Amino acid sequence: MIKFAQFGAGFIGKIHGANIARHPKAELAYIYDVKTEAAQQLAAQVGAEVSASPEEIWASDVDAVLIASSTNTHAELLSGSIKAGKPVYCEKPIDLDIDRVKTVVHQARNTNLPILVGFSRRFDSNHMGIREALQTGEIGKLEMMHITARDPRPPALSYIKVSGGQYRDQTIHFFDMLRWLAGEDPVEVYATGAALIDPAIGEAGDVDTSMLILKFASGALCHINCSRRAAYGYDECVELFGSQGMLVSRRKPRREVTVYKGDSIISDGLHPGWLERMEPTFYRALDALIKVMEGEQIEYPTLIDGLKAQMIAEAAIESLRTNQPVRITYWSPEQ
Amino acid sequence: MIKFAQFGAGFIGKIHGANIARHPKAELAYIYDVKTEAAQQLAAQVGAEVSASPEEIWASDVDAVLIASSTNTHAELLSGSIKAGKPVYCEKPIDLDIDRVKTVVHQARNTNLPILVGFSRRFDSNHMGIREALQTGEIGKLEMMHITARDPRPPALSYIKVSGGQYRDQTIHFFDMLRWLAGEDPVEVYATGAALIDPAIGEAGDVDTSMLILKFASGALCHINCSRRAAYGYDECVELFGSQGMLVSRRKPRREVTVYKGDSIISDGLHPGWLERMEPTFYRALDALIKVMEGEQIEYPTLIDGLKAQMIAEAAIESLRTNQPVRITYWSPEQ
Amino acid sequence: MIKFAQFGAGFIGKIHGANIARHPKAELAYIYDVKTEAAQQLAAQVGAEVSASPEEIWASDVDAVLIASSTNTHAELLSGSIKAGKPVYCEKPIDLDIDRVKTVVHQARNTNLPILVGFSRRFDSNHMGIREALQTGEIGKLEMMHITARDPRPPALSYIKVSGGQYRDQTIHFFDMLRWLAGEDPVEVYATGAALIDPAIGEAGDVDTSMLILKFASGALCHINCSRRAAYGYDECVELFGSQGMLVSRRKPRREVTVYKGDSIISDGLHPGWLERMEPTFYRALDALIKVMEGEQIEYPTLIDGLKAQMIAEAAIESLRTNQPVRITYWSPEQ
Amino acid sequence: MIKFAQFGAGFIGKIHGANIARHPKAELAYIYDVKTEAAQQLAAQVGAEVSASPEEIWASDVDAVLIASSTNTHAELLSGSIKAGKPVYCEKPIDLDIDRVKTVVHQARNTNLPILVGFSRRFDSNHMGIREALQTGEIGKLEMMHITARDPRPPALSYIKVSGGQYRDQTIHFFDMLRWLAGEDPVEVYATGAALIDPAIGEAGDVDTSMLILKFASGALCHINCSRRAAYGYDECVELFGSQGMLVSRRKPRREVTVYKGDSIISDGLHPGWLERMEPTFYRALDALIKVMEGEQIEYPTLIDGLKAQMIAEAAIESLRTNQPVRITYWSPEQ
Repeated sequence: MIKFAQFGAGFIGKIHGANIARHPKAELAYIYDVKTEAAQQLAAQVGAEVSASPEEIWASDVDAVLIASSTNTHAELLSGSIKAGKPVYCEKPIDLDIDRVKTVVHQARNTNLPILVGFSRRFDSNHMGIREALQTGEIGKLEMMHITARDPRPPALSYIKVSGGQYRDQTIHFFDMLRWLAGEDPVEVYATGAALIDPAIGEAGDVDTSMLILKFASGALCHINCSRRAAYGYDECVELFGSQGMLVSRRKPRREVTVYKGDSIISDGLHPGWLERMEPTFYRALDALIKVMEGEQIEYPTLIDGLKAQMIAEAAIESLRTNQPVRITYWSPEQ
Repeated sequence: MIKFAQFGAGFIGKIHGANIARHPKAELAYIYDVKTEAAQQLAAQVGAEVSASPEEIWASDVDAVLIASSTNTHAELLSGSIKAGKPVYCEKPIDLDIDRVKTVVHQARNTNLPILVGFSRRFDSNHMGIREALQTGEIGKLEMMHITARDPRPPALSYIKVSGGQYRDQTIHFFDMLRWLAGEDPVEVYATGAALIDPAIGEAGDVDTSMLILKFASGALCHINCSRRAAYGYDECVELFGSQGMLVSRRKPRREVTVYKGDSIISDGLHPGWLERMEPTFYRALDALIKVMEGEQIEYPTLIDGLKAQMIAEAAIESLRTNQPVRITYWSPEQ
Repeated sequence: MIKFAQFGAGFIGKIHGANIARHPKAELAYIYDVKTEAAQQLAAQVGAEVSASPEEIWASDVDAVLIASSTNTHAELLSGSIKAGKPVYCEKPIDLDIDRVKTVVHQARNTNLPILVGFSRRFDSNHMGIREALQTGEIGKLEMMHITARDPRPPALSYIKVSGGQYRDQTIHFFDMLRWLAGEDPVEVYATGAALIDPAIGEAGDVDTSMLILKFASGALCHINCSRRAAYGYDECVELFGSQGMLVSRRKPRREVTVYKGDSIISDGLHPGWLERMEPTFYRALDALIKVMEGEQIEYPTLIDGLKAQMIAEAAIESLRTNQPVRITYWSPEQ
Repeated sequence: MIKFAQFGAGFIGKIHGANIARHPKAELAYIYDVKTEAAQQLAAQVGAEVSASPEEIWASDVDAVLIASSTNTHAELLSGSIKAGKPVYCEKPIDLDIDRVKTVVHQARNTNLPILVGFSRRFDSNHMGIREALQTGEIGKLEMMHITARDPRPPALSYIKVSGGQYRDQTIHFFDMLRWLAGEDPVEVYATGAALIDPAIGEAGDVDTSMLILKFASGALCHINCSRRAAYGYDECVELFGSQGMLVSRRKPRREVTVYKGDSIISDGLHPGWLERMEPTFYRALDALIKVMEGEQIEYPTLIDGLKAQMIAEAAIESLRTNQPVRITYWSPEQ
């Protein structure tokens, strides 16, 4: 059994906590949250103890930590966990400040500690299906990728203001996904967007509706369209177009119920939110970390992956600001 | 150019007349209809002449005739056309009285005249697709067939009263289809039905909603469900289930237009009627007859096929009356 | 917490045991299996104790029992549990001998004990969706129902020989489903079938490929087609055809992955087996029993439902034997 | 009857000629082609006469002309037809040289002559369906448009060299389509592309794989992805994403035939080429011109539409060359 401690007992923390509790090879020993009541409540549900401080956790005998606290605490908790030699599952993003991200990456560079950054879409069975098919040559050489990423509704304006903007907050999942799918890093990005849903989002200096084009060194092109609001639920789908065919990770319906009526065929639509659509991926990501800790050689999203996705986001933000395509430069800790 | 004469200038006659007129290897020379005005109108549209009588047509130099007049005239017109040595495209059914059908079949037995009975669904590209795949072994040995056949709305009660009943009038297309698809004749039928749509149909001695099971000598089973009314348009689809897979001739949508809205995905439904769905098959059936007349070896629905479909209908009617499975006996003109 | 004991630690027992263990309102206290080793293994996995005998369980403080042992033990275990006043989740069928089923029903008739018979398809979200839509009048009055039920491959011949035959063993799920969907009992059944997959099944006195038509008192008709083998996975789908439209519980794909290649569009197919397709229904059925025990007024498949499904199966077997439609008579314990 | 003359008897000319011949309100009187033999052959098929020169046609009593000759003759033939006061159906593009296009537009500006430019996709029933739904408010305000446009295979290199490049030749259909769908003109374009299919296309100074983003004054965004080769047939589909939902003009399958086999569901794919997919649109475009000539008030793609699409193409070419977003300026003949 792998003994976990968890930072954070909020919305996403509850999901992670329950997953650790039901994983046959894991147990959740400690929970820490600045809101003690939240920590107590979750601890009671999953049979864990409340911890008094991060330091107590780092000093304990836990085998791994899961960081599900608020974004601005990730870097510090990562740093402490690395120092304590604990493998980590860390929710994305690592930090909104790219320099703090680099510091953590630098710190971790020679440790060999398994650190999984929560790009859990890498564990979605549909997306895994098209990636595997691409890798086995099913459609030849990749030429175009097309990603649709639309949330049902914008988050609260208060959240948007501290979110780092649409690209650091929402699109970042797909900056990681395109690298993971293509098997190479994009070298240039052109981003354009507007606040079409809510002018207040624009006044806050952000956009809610964006289109981006990214170029790979191979010449392959990637389009992302990203909206903070889809009136028909959570919409995420991907097309990979290659020299010998096309792969589609289709829209996933909520149920397979259809009504034939009048001149229409009416089927159940998409999931109401990203959580309903993506929930199974969190457990699989946790399972991946556990397998890695047990010595299996499996791929997972690393700190470097987290850093790279954020560097793409930085370039996209620069492109949005200047209305110019921007070259993406990747920093690596060896520099 | 093959010179055609046509009997009948009504609803279906207009379709056939226009098809002959636009076929590059055919021309429509004469039209006869007991309603002279209808004949004149269609003749003007397609550039044909009105004929004064069937006898005039039989005596003329036309190469072929198309019988699209009312059902009760088919047998006599067929008989005269056979005597005159004219190949025929005859709308289904041959006659509601099975004995008159046998007489015509007997008359035609040694003539080698191409006589095509209008089971035009044999020329539907979807149905042809599953038949070809079955024949090439795509799904192994056929074990179950499932046919859905639903009209948008019942015909007028006055028509129902002279139609010969649901099986002779509507289901007969699918009695032919199942033989054509399976490549063998059914040997037994169990039919059950009720007048669920309109009690007046029941009072007229007919049913409007039926389910049937037919058995082939090979052991394969066939289900037909047949309704005089579907609130969502014309619904026809077929499944062939075999030892190595399943073939589906799917419902065909009117258009490929979809709306994602709220919690639903709403697509354009089926065609409003059988004509919109099946119209292309009439031209192809005509084209098949022309090819046969030119010496090509292609399959087409013959008089014998027309007879067999009606013998199945007779057995189904007997089954409906007695609520017992009924053996199907096939008469052949050699007897 | 509701304390459960479970009879049976085999294939289906493992699924039920894990479900009880992860249900937040339940715990699995005891497991009994004639194979002690199996009981020990499952007990270790879910943190339960092995019980020495059914009697020990009945005498214990458990709040409910789950019967997942072999079919021939169900009636006796049910009877003992009823005597002990324990609510029951009992796997289907109750017993292959209809008289033993009646005895159990008679015994339970005045107890008010919640006894849930494992027709878990009633908890499938797709099927629930069409039932709810029918009940709310979405398609008007039901006129035709069409059920497809095909297993990927036949069970072992040794199992078939003791299974009670295709209708008591496989089709019985759908005898329950049609009653549940239609909201009324069928009054007559015509069943026909053959051993098309494996002659040995025929030699064992059974069929592997069947078509049935059932009539409701309302005049509505139901078709079931049922095969022991589908070369493309587990296939279950339902159509409800009504006066104002049609409802479909569609085939459920394994994943939403599609390849466009050459002249084809190739999508992921169905689940490899019924378990992968139906697994979520077992947890929901368990949850329903727990809710009923807590006083919620929710529908669930009762002993009477189990009895009725088996009486339909008996009539279907009689129909298959005689090739005649058979009236279905329902026995009730008040008689 | 409207008497037509046609310039051009090549591939697309044959289609137009046959359409005129079968239109009940039109007849094809004359055909002119610099290749006299081609003109003679088509004339024989459709019952027309061969004309000796364009001048002869302009001087004749024909009511309208159809220009289906090679692109470099369009401007001159348009000019002559306008002078002769003949309504025109002109294949796209008007001319590869934007200045010659302006000259023709200028010439036609006060004539009120119906001149239809062959953007026949405006008459595709799927695309018409989503446009109508957008206009009636089905999805609220348009925010994002997404167009996929992929030919099955690149044209001959010799054609590519004189085609004006991918944007003037292939993408131009969709520059028109986006204006027609959105109901407003784009104001800026960013285009990027590469020769991924065939290096020879790159050596010829062209691209074969492109992604573009266009902005409308309303803030709405449009993405086009465009390839000269799709290994699975002709692929064209459109998404309109709005504040209240999404409209999709789906991929259109060749047939509705599906095989369930092994772990896959295999359906018939797309059409082998654009002609099979788009053929019905040519007849409808012709019919629209005829209706306009008869005084009906219906929309159709005009010379101005042709000009605007080409001005977008010019801006896109400039963007591709400079890797910068480019403002689109629209010239109008009043200037």
